[in-house]
Amino acid sequence: MPLNIYDISRRAGVSIATVSRVLNNSPHVSENTRKKVMAVIEGCGYVPNAFARGLGLNSMQTIGLLCPNASDPYLAQALANLERSFRAHGYDCLLSCTDKELSARMQGVELLRTRHVDGMVLMGSSFIEAEDRNNDFIREAAKAVPILLLNGSFPCDNVYGVLCDDQRAACEATQLLLDSGRRRILYLYHSQNYSGRKKLAGYCDALASRGVELDESLMSYFGEDKTSVYQVRDHLLALERQGLEFDAVFTSEDILAVGAVKYAIAAGKKVPDDLSIIGYNNSSYCLCCNPELTSVDNKLSAICDHIVATMMGVLEGREMPQKTVFTGEIIRRGSTL
Amino acid sequence: MPLNIYDISRRAGVSIATVSRVLNNSPHVSENTRKKVMAVIEGCGYVPNAFARGLGLNSMQTIGLLCPNASDPYLAQALANLERSFRAHGYDCLLSCTDKELSARMQGVELLRTRHVDGMVLMGSSFIEAEDRNNDFIREAAKAVPILLLNGSFPCDNVYGVLCDDQRAACEATQLLLDSGRRRILYLYHSQNYSGRKKLAGYCDALASRGVELDESLMSYFGEDKTSVYQVRDHLLALERQGLEFDAVFTSEDILAVGAVKYAIAAGKKVPDDLSIIGYNNSSYCLCCNPELTSVDNKLSAICDHIVATMMGVLEGREMPQKTVFTGEIIRRGSTL
Repeated sequence: MPLNIYDISRRAGVSIATVSRVLNNSPHVSENTRKKVMAVIEGCGYVPNAFARGLGLNSMQTIGLLCPNASDPYLAQALANLERSFRAHGYDCLLSCTDKELSARMQGVELLRTRHVDGMVLMGSSFIEAEDRNNDFIREAAKAVPILLLNGSFPCDNVYGVLCDDQRAACEATQLLLDSGRRRILYLYHSQNYSGRKKLAGYCDALASRGVELDESLMSYFGEDKTSVYQVRDHLLALERQGLEFDAVFTSEDILAVGAVKYAIAAGKKVPDDLSIIGYNNSSYCLCCNPELTSVDNKLSAICDHIVATMMGVLEGREMPQKTVFTGEIIRRGSTL
Repeated sequence: MPLNIYDISRRAGVSIATVSRVLNNSPHVSENTRKKVMAVIEGCGYVPNAFARGLGLNSMQTIGLLCPNASDPYLAQALANLERSFRAHGYDCLLSCTDKELSARMQGVELLRTRHVDGMVLMGSSFIEAEDRNNDFIREAAKAVPILLLNGSFPCDNVYGVLCDDQRAACEATQLLLDSGRRRILYLYHSQNYSGRKKLAGYCDALASRGVELDESLMSYFGEDKTSVYQVRDHLLALERQGLEFDAVFTSEDILAVGAVKYAIAAGKKVPDDLSIIGYNNSSYCLCCNPELTSVDNKLSAICDHIVATMMGVLEGREMPQKTVFTGEIIRRGSTL
């Protein structure tokens, strides 16, 4: 099996960055180091990726994509964007759909490693576990190939995150509701992963910024499984029967906001006069509702472009940022005042 | 490079079916033929797929999936189903997203061939061209590996189609509208591929079956590109301004039906009292609308299961049906009487 840049770095006893500098003829390398690295390279037939491309050498020219659920509209769009852009760079994509279990995600990463992919993209923030020792499989995989995180960040060598600042975007969406006079804002979510925790923090930030006390009875968690719009509708009807008052709904995903619209219809409430609603992802669901949903555009297309650019840079031995952060944007439509 | 069953068949000068019978110890092979096939097999180190599995021999254990658009909800769901099921059978999936151009589709198939996949799934019926010589790339690829068509059918050795009877389903949906008293049924579609042509034929069949004359001014083609719900709404508003009368809308995709709902809202028409609407695919869009959309369930999950089962059967040398047809089912909701 041909060696890659990481093998060279280990064998030569220098950092990956140093190997990269040698490969790129950087002047910032001592002659001694250059000789040491070149000896390893010449001894093992390594051809740097940029040269190997098209020659069929040392690289399978394949990127592994790990996707927790290709039928999720957000991830499906990301998959299409990534595949197209990697292919334009001469790389094929090997797809592995893990599910939400940690063991399945570990298995997915392992499977791609055995297939000698040049790099991996872990799609969606569900890969980063709150409990740190559960992230060891990512650290381990990053020793062999670069790992790109779509909408996640994780401080580790050879791991690069490209993400939307979900905490800030969730804060701004909640502030928009507060500043239009709403005070009792339901927060509906169905993920407690990295991005899910950021959104929740943003909701709390907004309340604090406007001096509104946090009321935990206004937060509803729907579990990681696919939530139907009817579950959301029925849950809100039950909250209303229990006497809970609320004048707005902010959700971590558009489909939950669609459920809130269904509740409003069932309860005879007018959107946005009686109830303001904001979703998240700015997916095509937003246009199906009447009124159309205000939602947070989390810049997926730009994130995908940057993932591919970062991966290519790393594979070509260039210095790349370990964290790239985009700012979400609230797209205002008829479901808010 | 290791040989596959097709190479063996060519070298031994016998059919693929005969090689398969030898590999499966079928009694219906002459001793002479058996010896000839076994000589080729032993001479080249071929190990039949079923045995090779897990040993890493003669097979990359990879299925190539060609998907014209992974962000389309129907294809995204299919992708998730197929990947999961192939992985459960020990096969990885190499994904290639072609676009709608014939040349891109040809290139996608060629790319998977060079990666030595064990088989290919062409997803969606846009792969089958109306003009037959444009299908030569499929015939050519089928000489090397089995080709499965998701929702398509094409008479060619080593090509297997698993599909929904879209003509029948479209006919039944149109008949449902006619039998509820509607006479002026708009048909909106945005594909002229195999499945698109079947749906159009079903619409025409239904009119003929109820003695209603076909009026071409009621049929609107929206082009293969992604159609926005606003385009559909504005088109119907324009038709109304031109004085065209219609009391129902049937569409080839749910998203077009969502556009018809938007038209009804803009035109102040009540659904279904003033306008009945039926979509196609029974996607999650149906539940976002108010009223919810009646739609055709085209049995995608069963189709995916059968694609994987058929592929496994072919790779194991078993006799498999070249065409498997499911019947669609109309899911009635609030948008029809």
